[in-house]
Amino acid sequence: MTFSSKSGSGSIDVAVFGAGRIGRIHAGNLARHPGAKIKYVIDVNRAAAAELAAQYGATVVEAEAALADASVGASVICSSTDTHADLIERSAAAGKHIFCEKPVDLELERARACARAVEQAGVVCMIGFQRRFDPTFAAVKARIEAGEIGTPEMLVVTSRDPGAPPVEYIRRSGGIFKDMLIHDFDIFRWILDDEALTVHANGSCLTDPAIFDAGDVDSTAVTIRTKRGRLCQINTTRRAAYGYDQRFEVLGSGGMLQAGNVRPTEVVAYTANAVSSDVPEAFFLERYRAAYANEIAHFFDAVTQGARVRTTIADGVKALELAEAATRSWREGRVINIGE
Amino acid sequence: MTFSSKSGSGSIDVAVFGAGRIGRIHAGNLARHPGAKIKYVIDVNRAAAAELAAQYGATVVEAEAALADASVGASVICSSTDTHADLIERSAAAGKHIFCEKPVDLELERARACARAVEQAGVVCMIGFQRRFDPTFAAVKARIEAGEIGTPEMLVVTSRDPGAPPVEYIRRSGGIFKDMLIHDFDIFRWILDDEALTVHANGSCLTDPAIFDAGDVDSTAVTIRTKRGRLCQINTTRRAAYGYDQRFEVLGSGGMLQAGNVRPTEVVAYTANAVSSDVPEAFFLERYRAAYANEIAHFFDAVTQGARVRTTIADGVKALELAEAATRSWREGRVINIGE
Amino acid sequence: MTFSSKSGSGSIDVAVFGAGRIGRIHAGNLARHPGAKIKYVIDVNRAAAAELAAQYGATVVEAEAALADASVGASVICSSTDTHADLIERSAAAGKHIFCEKPVDLELERARACARAVEQAGVVCMIGFQRRFDPTFAAVKARIEAGEIGTPEMLVVTSRDPGAPPVEYIRRSGGIFKDMLIHDFDIFRWILDDEALTVHANGSCLTDPAIFDAGDVDSTAVTIRTKRGRLCQINTTRRAAYGYDQRFEVLGSGGMLQAGNVRPTEVVAYTANAVSSDVPEAFFLERYRAAYANEIAHFFDAVTQGARVRTTIADGVKALELAEAATRSWREGRVINIGE
Amino acid sequence: MTFSSKSGSGSIDVAVFGAGRIGRIHAGNLARHPGAKIKYVIDVNRAAAAELAAQYGATVVEAEAALADASVGASVICSSTDTHADLIERSAAAGKHIFCEKPVDLELERARACARAVEQAGVVCMIGFQRRFDPTFAAVKARIEAGEIGTPEMLVVTSRDPGAPPVEYIRRSGGIFKDMLIHDFDIFRWILDDEALTVHANGSCLTDPAIFDAGDVDSTAVTIRTKRGRLCQINTTRRAAYGYDQRFEVLGSGGMLQAGNVRPTEVVAYTANAVSSDVPEAFFLERYRAAYANEIAHFFDAVTQGARVRTTIADGVKALELAEAATRSWREGRVINIGE
Repeated sequence: MTFSSKSGSGSIDVAVFGAGRIGRIHAGNLARHPGAKIKYVIDVNRAAAAELAAQYGATVVEAEAALADASVGASVICSSTDTHADLIERSAAAGKHIFCEKPVDLELERARACARAVEQAGVVCMIGFQRRFDPTFAAVKARIEAGEIGTPEMLVVTSRDPGAPPVEYIRRSGGIFKDMLIHDFDIFRWILDDEALTVHANGSCLTDPAIFDAGDVDSTAVTIRTKRGRLCQINTTRRAAYGYDQRFEVLGSGGMLQAGNVRPTEVVAYTANAVSSDVPEAFFLERYRAAYANEIAHFFDAVTQGARVRTTIADGVKALELAEAATRSWREGRVINIGE
Repeated sequence: MTFSSKSGSGSIDVAVFGAGRIGRIHAGNLARHPGAKIKYVIDVNRAAAAELAAQYGATVVEAEAALADASVGASVICSSTDTHADLIERSAAAGKHIFCEKPVDLELERARACARAVEQAGVVCMIGFQRRFDPTFAAVKARIEAGEIGTPEMLVVTSRDPGAPPVEYIRRSGGIFKDMLIHDFDIFRWILDDEALTVHANGSCLTDPAIFDAGDVDSTAVTIRTKRGRLCQINTTRRAAYGYDQRFEVLGSGGMLQAGNVRPTEVVAYTANAVSSDVPEAFFLERYRAAYANEIAHFFDAVTQGARVRTTIADGVKALELAEAATRSWREGRVINIGE
Repeated sequence: MTFSSKSGSGSIDVAVFGAGRIGRIHAGNLARHPGAKIKYVIDVNRAAAAELAAQYGATVVEAEAALADASVGASVICSSTDTHADLIERSAAAGKHIFCEKPVDLELERARACARAVEQAGVVCMIGFQRRFDPTFAAVKARIEAGEIGTPEMLVVTSRDPGAPPVEYIRRSGGIFKDMLIHDFDIFRWILDDEALTVHANGSCLTDPAIFDAGDVDSTAVTIRTKRGRLCQINTTRRAAYGYDQRFEVLGSGGMLQAGNVRPTEVVAYTANAVSSDVPEAFFLERYRAAYANEIAHFFDAVTQGARVRTTIADGVKALELAEAATRSWREGRVINIGE
Repeated sequence: MTFSSKSGSGSIDVAVFGAGRIGRIHAGNLARHPGAKIKYVIDVNRAAAAELAAQYGATVVEAEAALADASVGASVICSSTDTHADLIERSAAAGKHIFCEKPVDLELERARACARAVEQAGVVCMIGFQRRFDPTFAAVKARIEAGEIGTPEMLVVTSRDPGAPPVEYIRRSGGIFKDMLIHDFDIFRWILDDEALTVHANGSCLTDPAIFDAGDVDSTAVTIRTKRGRLCQINTTRRAAYGYDQRFEVLGSGGMLQAGNVRPTEVVAYTANAVSSDVPEAFFLERYRAAYANEIAHFFDAVTQGARVRTTIADGVKALELAEAATRSWREGRVINIGE
């Protein structure tokens, strides 16, 4: 399972919303496609917008101007979460194809409205679940589909961050289930190719009382049962002392596939007390470097060649539904039936 | 963390109840201790009893006779589950020290009665949770206690059998939670050094409909929250196509410790399509070979030297409480508060 | 130990000699540096030259014209081995900085003459020993220098190709020691930071009799003793059925460091008979992808910022001396004293 | 490839020569066979002999008495190297089967005389090359024979001790090639199933000048070419800071098999700076625990059931020939043709 990170043909002019860390990553990956031109950069931080624009020969404008320019074929939305829904709807209305970072919105109803807007406009809308484009994760998916382990029966996801974001961020994040586990919920749906019937979530605040004071938890244990009776367990923490830990394993009727961490180097050291290798890549920018490049290549191919996108706005809505159910399960201390 | 599998001093005469597979293992390990003499073998299957007795110069008798012999210092109970409680109580009444395979009994009240009988008799009663004596698992425990990963916060247990026992066995087993996960519940209590506050269990029958017809499941996903707010997830299946899979990992505030599978050899093969190593040891007799030897050495030391046993009848009762709670959680589809 | 694969400042116009596979790799990596402009492409295969030139907005010219253009700051020599020495000397005479693929030349005297020409011209001349820029190999070097394993004492290098090149190529290659092991000889000098005192090489033709008929071998076992008494063993084959195998390990007074292979993904599969992971990256273009990018970034930095290059023409000459000594040792069946 | 460490039938009375560390290991393993009776223990150290004899109900006698007792079926020779040849010859003359620790003798001619004596007497004589009985090594051999990697072409052996023995021992050891590499020479012959044509050995004294003063080296690099043109490299050191390192890998026309180290536990620790596992088993008694048990079981089976032994005195002589050739190669700085 490999992705080309450089596509051949087609061309499109792009408006990039958000010149922060992830905006710069996406812009850099877009620029590697000869047919992709970053025409506009939009950010309330004008200095950041100007710096990113300068790097790729783009112009800094307001959102209105970018969306009004008929030559712009796509919006790449990397701005703050509270702007996503608005930009999706306006981009759809303007007939632009859309790439939007997760989540669609923190409110399920608003996210669903966005999905309807996209559908009505008939534009491509891809949500940034980049993990599906990670070479290791994508290889597991392909090998399951090739029948290597028979019918998938259980999924165990380990998803641990190296450290919590500032409490100020957590307060506005929608909570750990919408902010962090939303990726794991998408992995669950993608890998098991099934939908949740029930969700049980437990959460605890073990690393920092300030997170508790902000109304959130930093450690979670989630169990999902699918409509076909399959089981999934997800364990997460905001703080793993050894770094960013991103693994899952799928047990099937004929075997198991594990997706492991990526290490910076393949050095192994033998000393008096231990045989040791590198800790995993530090955080998501390093761990998913290839995934981000593959994801944007996929988007570029989709919008220039009319292909279907692997991660649609419907996937964004479904992941959010699971995040909401998990949040309720944790708050109410009970199992939630999806659709109840 | 190592165990001697051969102890030095002391001597004791032993009555072995049950001459089946596990009885033969324990007898063989006992016989390696110069001070341990297998005096009697008791089994309803007289031929099996005779064969085992012949091997160690023991005599085949009825339980009454063995328990009436004042020279017998200990009962090693490896007979079928439905005889455990009775033999524990009678052995205690006769003043014999006791080693008993898990479970104490399938009924919690009866198990508690056994614990009271043991206490009143003042005898040693060790329950066969052999995993605590596995060199890898015991090393993890010792390293946690040495502070290597700070405060334990999460435990993820993977416990998968290579294949289900006959349905006839399953029908009388008390269900997967009492029969199979009881070991995992003991690992949970031992590793986290904490007690359960709530238990949630989901189960599914994915490998064989006959198990469903017998009123049981073959796949489970359990979440436990401890009194101190720690989280534990356990995933189990009756049938892993690649063999017996016995792993766990403990996330602490300062790092993580993983206990991995044991392989028959350290051969690695490189061929055109894969780099491959051995699958794990086939099943519990192979995987826990060292654990069984260490366990019996520990029991021998305890009864000859008066040491405390690592796995008491109280541990057996506690594990059973968790198994009952998990069974109820699965049946009722809800989170169970321990003690409710 | 990390390298930036994209440097900040400085600019240079470059003439690329050779539009084959490796020429295209270097051109692509050069083009990622905003300050690097590929001005000319030179190749006897005009179609290949034209295609590469078109990709980067360069012009196809003859060597004379490129070297006569005073605006050209550097020659990147990726043409066939028999043109290296000539192009190095002419580039040096024209005052161009030089990046040249290994080997400098198949004849030691000619290679030494090139080194003198470079010295007299005062230009940078970097030889393409890209392995020194591999993240794993470079990390080992840095950790040795940091003292992690004390004094290095032994080096064991495993260097195996997935398959032999065409016999026609082998016939003109200078033999396996100059064509293939020259990289390993450079690794030896770099990692042990020492020079050879004696060389012993054994060779055998085990994979294809046509290689024997061409006067060469396909399997070698080399032992080098350094001036300080350290030992190095190198084993190589032209054909490893499982792919490209590039490992080494350094034993020091205080421990050992191993540099392992790189895998395409981190998937591990458990099936009935084996636990398996990916075979190593297929061949040098995949295995050393990052190394090639780092190498060219290093060259770009050196020529634009005046830094010293890590792999000089003197290194190219030294590696060739070892290749000659190994060839003689194999042919004459005896130990060769370097300098004899 | 498995060995039973406990055989069923047959019986034999044994005289154990040497009550040191390895003598105690062999005695303990012998005693696990119901049919094996340790009748006599012989050692110049009478206290050690008495202690070992007491443990197994044996009698301490002089060699003469033991060999004169017609009921003794086998000599197990674990005494100091300078007594091996004499005890082999006397045991053969007395019609006893023989198990003898390596080496047969430090002098090749004497070893050959022993082989002739054994042949004339028609007794079994097994030499203690226990590595052939290691589960991992034996599995590699079996898988080669099953054709898993096609025709073996290259063998790379890594054989490193955790620390040098006392210089006083080294002085009488016959040198590193006869004392330490003799095991590796046996592995070479066994795994490649071929004989040496030429041997080249380099040696260096890098860990302790006292070893140099004793006329020996502590680090070696050996290359062997077989009669069929296959290549073997062996690297050894007397002191690896991380412990006892016993690995080899066999490259064949169809793949590669690696035999790796054995670890005390399967714990993996993740901390801020490294992912680490156990160092290998500490030294030969731990690393080859199973091998020693399997080896004695094999000897017991051979002498009680008339089977052929896997490691004959001819193997002992052949390994010694290689050790002599390697010693000469190192001393004379040249390649040695076997048989020259």
